[in-house]
Amino acid sequence: MKLIGYFRSSAAFRVRIALNLKGVVVEHAFRHLRRGEHRAPDYVALNPQKLVPALVLDSGEVLTQSNPPILPKDPVGRARVRSLALIPTADIHPIQNLRVMAYLRDKYEQSEEGTFAWSRHWIETGFEAYEASVAGNRHTGAYSHGDQPTMADLCLAPQVFNAQRFKVDMSRFPTIQRIFATCMKHPAFDAAQPAKQPDAEP
Amino acid sequence: MKLIGYFRSSAAFRVRIALNLKGVVVEHAFRHLRRGEHRAPDYVALNPQKLVPALVLDSGEVLTQSNPPILPKDPVGRARVRSLALIPTADIHPIQNLRVMAYLRDKYEQSEEGTFAWSRHWIETGFEAYEASVAGNRHTGAYSHGDQPTMADLCLAPQVFNAQRFKVDMSRFPTIQRIFATCMKHPAFDAAQPAKQPDAEP
Repeated sequence: MKLIGYFRSSAAFRVRIALNLKGVVVEHAFRHLRRGEHRAPDYVALNPQKLVPALVLDSGEVLTQSNPPILPKDPVGRARVRSLALIPTADIHPIQNLRVMAYLRDKYEQSEEGTFAWSRHWIETGFEAYEASVAGNRHTGAYSHGDQPTMADLCLAPQVFNAQRFKVDMSRFPTIQRIFATCMKHPAFDAAQPAKQPDAEP
Repeated sequence: MKLIGYFRSSAAFRVRIALNLKGVVVEHAFRHLRRGEHRAPDYVALNPQKLVPALVLDSGEVLTQSNPPILPKDPVGRARVRSLALIPTADIHPIQNLRVMAYLRDKYEQSEEGTFAWSRHWIETGFEAYEASVAGNRHTGAYSHGDQPTMADLCLAPQVFNAQRFKVDMSRFPTIQRIFATCMKHPAFDAAQPAKQPDAEP
């Protein structure tokens, strides 16, 4: 099985955590997003969505997108975890990712700081929603839902890395900070972090 | 059970289709997004994410976000449907929705046509990915995956309504158009469409 990713991709980061949690060992391959390697014809043949990651199974089937269903057993808990997971996955990350920043820079003549300010705005808006959803909620535990990592944490932790890159003031989000600290002590999260990937750059 | 939505919300539309498919009858309530009724304190107390829809269960539990897991039985099929569903849910809709358009208008001094052009760009980019993922794929049937509606179709159909509003040239996406036509012949999709909701406006 081969995971095609990029060290800094939040979406690939989610899948690395999930594979680590499940103890699944995969071959790693990389596409450098800033160099546009995900738009090369051989990659587009594998993943016509032109996004990382792609997980190539031994059967040749290719799985794309990145929300591994790691969920609690009760239906209301599953719905809560899916909802939390979609805050970073739908409401934050797609608005502040590389391709939107590049489009803003090119079409709206935004400086690098202008694109960073855009990203900070959407991360802060989404983190306000996440913080309000977990702070003081009786289902929140050491992690976003109970005391085991779920799909929600897989999606939250990579988004906190992005927030740090764009200099979001995390002191406004104490529950997120506490959950993030718990996550990063877990070996599955730690080993998946961008700086520890073979294609990492300084 | 009560669904709090808005006739034009893609996310509420997805949930309406799912409830119709499952034959679940719910009470409908509405928050007018353009009037900011989703930011009123009584709604924020129910859904701190300040987004529609919210599904209030008879037990008082509130379910938020909008990707009902209507999936095929085989694991690779489930992964394919989840991936397709995330194209509208993550890669298109959050970038082109009302709050991003409002932010562009206010902070970047964009005209209405400017914000429409932004929305068209991200819908077209995402539909190129969707079309490439379903056209000629052996798993695609009358619907996006096989001959029964799945979570992928629930997410696709509302996005096509948005595309029509923003005047996307749909002739570039023949497979999406064919699947959309199939969906809209299904009573669960038809009854869920914006114009047929009690809070619809001309």
